[in-house]
Amino acid sequence: MQRRQFLKAGGTLAATGSLAACAREGAAPADGERDSRRYQWNMVTTWPANFPALGTGASRLAQMITDASGGRLSVRVYGGGELVPPFETFDAVARGTAQMGHGAAYYWGGKSPACPFFAAVPFGLNTQEMNGWLYHGGGLELWRELYAGFGLVPFPAGNTGVQMAGWFNREIRTVADLRGLKMRIPGLGGEVMARLGATPVNLPGAELFTALQTGVIDATEWVGPYNDLAFGLHRAARHYYYPGWQEPCATLECIVNKAAFESLPGDLQAIVEACCRAINDDVLAEMTAQNGRALEQLRDQHQVDVRALPDTVLAALKEASDQVVAEVAARDAFAARVLASYRAFQDDAAAWHRSSELPYYLARG
Amino acid sequence: MQRRQFLKAGGTLAATGSLAACAREGAAPADGERDSRRYQWNMVTTWPANFPALGTGASRLAQMITDASGGRLSVRVYGGGELVPPFETFDAVARGTAQMGHGAAYYWGGKSPACPFFAAVPFGLNTQEMNGWLYHGGGLELWRELYAGFGLVPFPAGNTGVQMAGWFNREIRTVADLRGLKMRIPGLGGEVMARLGATPVNLPGAELFTALQTGVIDATEWVGPYNDLAFGLHRAARHYYYPGWQEPCATLECIVNKAAFESLPGDLQAIVEACCRAINDDVLAEMTAQNGRALEQLRDQHQVDVRALPDTVLAALKEASDQVVAEVAARDAFAARVLASYRAFQDDAAAWHRSSELPYYLARG
Repeated sequence: MQRRQFLKAGGTLAATGSLAACAREGAAPADGERDSRRYQWNMVTTWPANFPALGTGASRLAQMITDASGGRLSVRVYGGGELVPPFETFDAVARGTAQMGHGAAYYWGGKSPACPFFAAVPFGLNTQEMNGWLYHGGGLELWRELYAGFGLVPFPAGNTGVQMAGWFNREIRTVADLRGLKMRIPGLGGEVMARLGATPVNLPGAELFTALQTGVIDATEWVGPYNDLAFGLHRAARHYYYPGWQEPCATLECIVNKAAFESLPGDLQAIVEACCRAINDDVLAEMTAQNGRALEQLRDQHQVDVRALPDTVLAALKEASDQVVAEVAARDAFAARVLASYRAFQDDAAAWHRSSELPYYLARG
Repeated sequence: MQRRQFLKAGGTLAATGSLAACAREGAAPADGERDSRRYQWNMVTTWPANFPALGTGASRLAQMITDASGGRLSVRVYGGGELVPPFETFDAVARGTAQMGHGAAYYWGGKSPACPFFAAVPFGLNTQEMNGWLYHGGGLELWRELYAGFGLVPFPAGNTGVQMAGWFNREIRTVADLRGLKMRIPGLGGEVMARLGATPVNLPGAELFTALQTGVIDATEWVGPYNDLAFGLHRAARHYYYPGWQEPCATLECIVNKAAFESLPGDLQAIVEACCRAINDDVLAEMTAQNGRALEQLRDQHQVDVRALPDTVLAALKEASDQVVAEVAARDAFAARVLASYRAFQDDAAAWHRSSELPYYLARG
């Protein structure tokens, strides 16, 4: 979506933000003069400061905006807990405690059942497809319509790519092996696991290693080799399974207080939009590079048993996933609209990738 | 690569551009004042004006830069042939006839045998991997080192994703069916086909339909469903094969005259870099969305026979591709450095994708 289209769409929605927004210096420009007002913004995040690829992505985004604006829009990043707790990010930006936030929409399922569809759907779109849907398939318009009701403007701002299915302290040979398994797996993926007899729990990332090592949980999913290696999860469980059916991509979001965004001159709005798209590209690139190196290290240096989930287990997970996702959409009219758009896109994109990416991977080896 | 890293790397290289660069208004700023100089740049392209996804991507890039700079850097796009012929883009930007160009590095194999490695390598990296190598695997530093010798600064600025293998007027069942085939396939892919007994020819896109329909050629590759449908190639040949082994991705480039780039203030340099990355994300998103729709249309409305190349044919193509690529690198020291970096990255990234993207596609169906 182009900026002008966006502004047009945005103009039809009421600004519900309560914020008079931002520290300013300088004055509104006279006709034909440059706008010299300066803005100091705070960005709160759901990640620890400089957490690999996620937190560092947020920091790079802030730096890019500051550089591209020549310091006219200067963004300072706060790690989760520094200014507000990680999961207060959405509310803090909505009410204007901070002008900007970085996180992922699946943390906000309590705000609307449609939120997780803008981050990750079990057996849904991968990153390449998600970007197609968001930017050229109507997804971003729906996301902006939803968040406008909270006084927020969302921008896609990073992606993990396909994740790993997780770390298990025992082998998974059949669906029966999932029964009774205590696994840290939040969101829709957790609901799917529950349907197959597991007990999903949610824990903050920082607690995963100890919980897994002490047997409080039997399994955990986190992100992928790069992030999982950083947490040392290979020292707490032996079996590392793929693919990450529960998060075939996780879209990161940059959320901006709507009133603050609308108070910016047009060039700074365009800079925010361009830099978010740049970082959307960059986080996936970093993940791809680092996951390759980390997987090699896990296999070769740490002798981790990296293996695929059995086909029968994946088939059962897919069946349960499609049910869970359909039920979420059935409970909420807006979620139903989002899912209809998402699935129509998935039908076409999956058919295209069955004739392009998939056979290419198979042919290359 | 961050802007500051880039400037540091760029600073060690002599500016070889001959250009005093750009139309300017305004004056250099006094200390502490905003830089009010205005720049009018021309962008020449290898594509027809507003050619689907490629030409429109170039136009969106120019608009983004103009918007994000509030008109201080205003970019006007010329389609191939409007200001200079399409394949004069590289030279025109190097000598400063235009400040900026949009195309793909495999058109410049005559400048250096290393150039094609920055666009597409048969059986090489796909888009996700290519972005990983360029931005977080050392690829972009090598590309900038190579182009600095021509007075140019390259930026990745779009990608097609995995292409199609092409349109054939007869079935391909075995490697023997490639013998004697007259096929439009340029670059490294053409060399590979020649090694298997085909006769590769190069023709401008606009001539493909007539050449195929009149039997001047027996087969042609172009891009993918979206672009191929726009050319009407389904009315000239019946068999449409995948996957595009010859171009598992095609990275588009934005090239900037080095002296012109260095004459920009830092914020406008950062805007050029951010907008190129944004469009790098955007062109692939558009291709993914449009290829899905176009493939459905080709299958359902035009009854095109869409099918995979046989495994034995793909295996022979892969063997010949690896030979051709290695021979190119053996002829040129810089190409050898580039290929060594590229292949090291491919080893890790391919292993990661065999545990993530590939098994995910298989599990989802």
